[in-house]
Amino acid sequence: MNATEEAKAPGPVLAPPGLEGVAVAETTIGDVRGEEGFFHYRGYNAVELASKCSFEQVWHLLIEGELPNSEQTKKFRADSIELRELPDQVSKLLPEIAHIKPFVPLDALRTAISLVGSATGLRPTMDISAEEVRQQAVRMTAVAPVLLMAMYRSHQGLEPVTPDPELGYAAAYLQMLTGKRPDPEYARAVEKYLILTMDHGFNASTFTARVIASTGADLGSGLVGAIGALSGPLHGGAPSRALQTLDEIGTADRAYDYLREKVASGQRLMGFGHRVYKTDDPRSTLLREVALELGGEQADLAQHVEQTALQVLNELKPGRRLYTNVEFYAGVVMNTAGIPRDMFTPTFACSRTVGWTAAICEQAGHNRLIRPSAIYVGPPPPQPLPQGYEYV
Amino acid sequence: MNATEEAKAPGPVLAPPGLEGVAVAETTIGDVRGEEGFFHYRGYNAVELASKCSFEQVWHLLIEGELPNSEQTKKFRADSIELRELPDQVSKLLPEIAHIKPFVPLDALRTAISLVGSATGLRPTMDISAEEVRQQAVRMTAVAPVLLMAMYRSHQGLEPVTPDPELGYAAAYLQMLTGKRPDPEYARAVEKYLILTMDHGFNASTFTARVIASTGADLGSGLVGAIGALSGPLHGGAPSRALQTLDEIGTADRAYDYLREKVASGQRLMGFGHRVYKTDDPRSTLLREVALELGGEQADLAQHVEQTALQVLNELKPGRRLYTNVEFYAGVVMNTAGIPRDMFTPTFACSRTVGWTAAICEQAGHNRLIRPSAIYVGPPPPQPLPQGYEYV
Repeated sequence: MNATEEAKAPGPVLAPPGLEGVAVAETTIGDVRGEEGFFHYRGYNAVELASKCSFEQVWHLLIEGELPNSEQTKKFRADSIELRELPDQVSKLLPEIAHIKPFVPLDALRTAISLVGSATGLRPTMDISAEEVRQQAVRMTAVAPVLLMAMYRSHQGLEPVTPDPELGYAAAYLQMLTGKRPDPEYARAVEKYLILTMDHGFNASTFTARVIASTGADLGSGLVGAIGALSGPLHGGAPSRALQTLDEIGTADRAYDYLREKVASGQRLMGFGHRVYKTDDPRSTLLREVALELGGEQADLAQHVEQTALQVLNELKPGRRLYTNVEFYAGVVMNTAGIPRDMFTPTFACSRTVGWTAAICEQAGHNRLIRPSAIYVGPPPPQPLPQGYEYV
Repeated sequence: MNATEEAKAPGPVLAPPGLEGVAVAETTIGDVRGEEGFFHYRGYNAVELASKCSFEQVWHLLIEGELPNSEQTKKFRADSIELRELPDQVSKLLPEIAHIKPFVPLDALRTAISLVGSATGLRPTMDISAEEVRQQAVRMTAVAPVLLMAMYRSHQGLEPVTPDPELGYAAAYLQMLTGKRPDPEYARAVEKYLILTMDHGFNASTFTARVIASTGADLGSGLVGAIGALSGPLHGGAPSRALQTLDEIGTADRAYDYLREKVASGQRLMGFGHRVYKTDDPRSTLLREVALELGGEQADLAQHVEQTALQVLNELKPGRRLYTNVEFYAGVVMNTAGIPRDMFTPTFACSRTVGWTAAICEQAGHNRLIRPSAIYVGPPPPQPLPQGYEYV
């Protein structure tokens, strides 16, 4: 082969639909092992982290790359509490955004994050140091729930609540929602949920954040795109859907008939099944435990429905395994802790901001554009303009 | 191979860096043939379209899939003019957004598009008909320059100008900027630029829009992500950079020494070279013609600098060909027509909204998540938590 032949690039190769099974990056952030029902953050079992660590400890692990010791945790928490403060020019606009009709909290968060990006003068990641990008990452993660809760309360005609500087991320999350210091048991339950959903491999919103970051754009642009992707029904699922199933069933004695009819008529059971896991969703296992510890009728009903669903599946579709996914008990936990249903997905967005920002930091270090191509399959060019086609 | 072996999915295959040469979709929107210096929209030579058609004719081609006849053009133009109207709840917020410091017009547009998405109640594309998505696409494209110009004028302490319903997209673009009906020659020059930049294959912002749309998210979310990606220095380039080169050179007699020093010291010449084209950038060819027709000192200087640069390259790096890219004459055309430099990239965002929305419409029809994976290369899991690691 001579130089000229070598230089002539071959045409692009069509990737599998949806890029399934195509790895577009190497990462040290974490991974999902669907066959094993296991996922991890930087090598640590994510379920173990959620069981034993605080939001700040795992946040530090993901964004700084290592588990903090006790001193580091205290400093990181103190720093992140200071970074919760909103720019004045943004806080005064939040009530206005909250009064845009229809109020969709996730879309409002998308707008507010875009505003904070402007108001804090975020610059292209490729023009600043990795350390600056990391600081911006912590700040954006710290303000996300403050923005969200201020708008949620404004929308309800309530005054926004300043986050209590004595409370960590999870407890302050509930305090900004209700205006009261939360029951520590609820705060800890929500904290476990938040940790479990910080990251989950290379999902569509994380990929979006990385594609945007690959252009060298600022961190806020990546987050805004990621929030947009998360709003898609094919991405995130919606923990509130699983609660609808529980509502429709109502009482334990109705579960069997309800589920049998659903499965027999081929309808999808909300809260069951996951694209990646072929076993129990590991998040579901821990959240079941959390839900049952919190107690209450809904948790008992959920457990009964789960067991009944597996029984019905076994009767009607023997050999087909279907497991509860993260939505199922997540909904019960959030509901019990007092988070309204229309805030479930926005809550997910807040915790996933940790994963998104970690991905943006990693991608920004690569400094290489993600730019695939497409194969044109329309009428062969050049098509002539119609005879006598005139400028109108 | 038996069924069990077949069912066991192989691990993901690492794609080339940046997905280069990987086609992630089939498309009928258009294509770039870099080796031939040719790009097209739905099979029609884009340069020919820009030379002979109006913005609305080519917009219709891209979004509806076919060139409109004269009646269709008139109807499409009338519809798009009606769709320029901003929701009241958005227009009253624009001055506030424009006063966020620092004012970066493209970031302000990102926020404003996010707001319009909320205020017009955009729903997930997968929950509505393809026709509804297309209508939303036309509306968002129609309002983009109205938002941008209102904020730009507000930032300068001027009242926003309502777009003149007698003017098409390109002329109204200038009218909303200056408050005056533009010279038709300038409007037509800008129109050619806008048409030439509506789409350009599978660039990073278009890909971003498609990844977001693939989750079934609403059209506004895709646009917001695309604007974010466009803001990245590795993506769009910046037509104002090429003007800086002209400014630094100042007068024709200084061109040779300036360029010789730049090339000899290995510095990059802004306005020259393109990732895709190995020949003249076809956009540059038409825009050179447009710039010289408009006339003026800057156009003459630009032509002299271009010729001198090619001469210098020939002397210092014989055999290496470098051509002007779209930035070079685009900057001259926009500057001559009265568009300020900080509005060059936002102007590009407005025209590219046609391509982004066409891509979102096409992607929404596929209803399939784009979800690649990554290869984890960090410490092997599961890492044990440090002995005695405590919740802090």
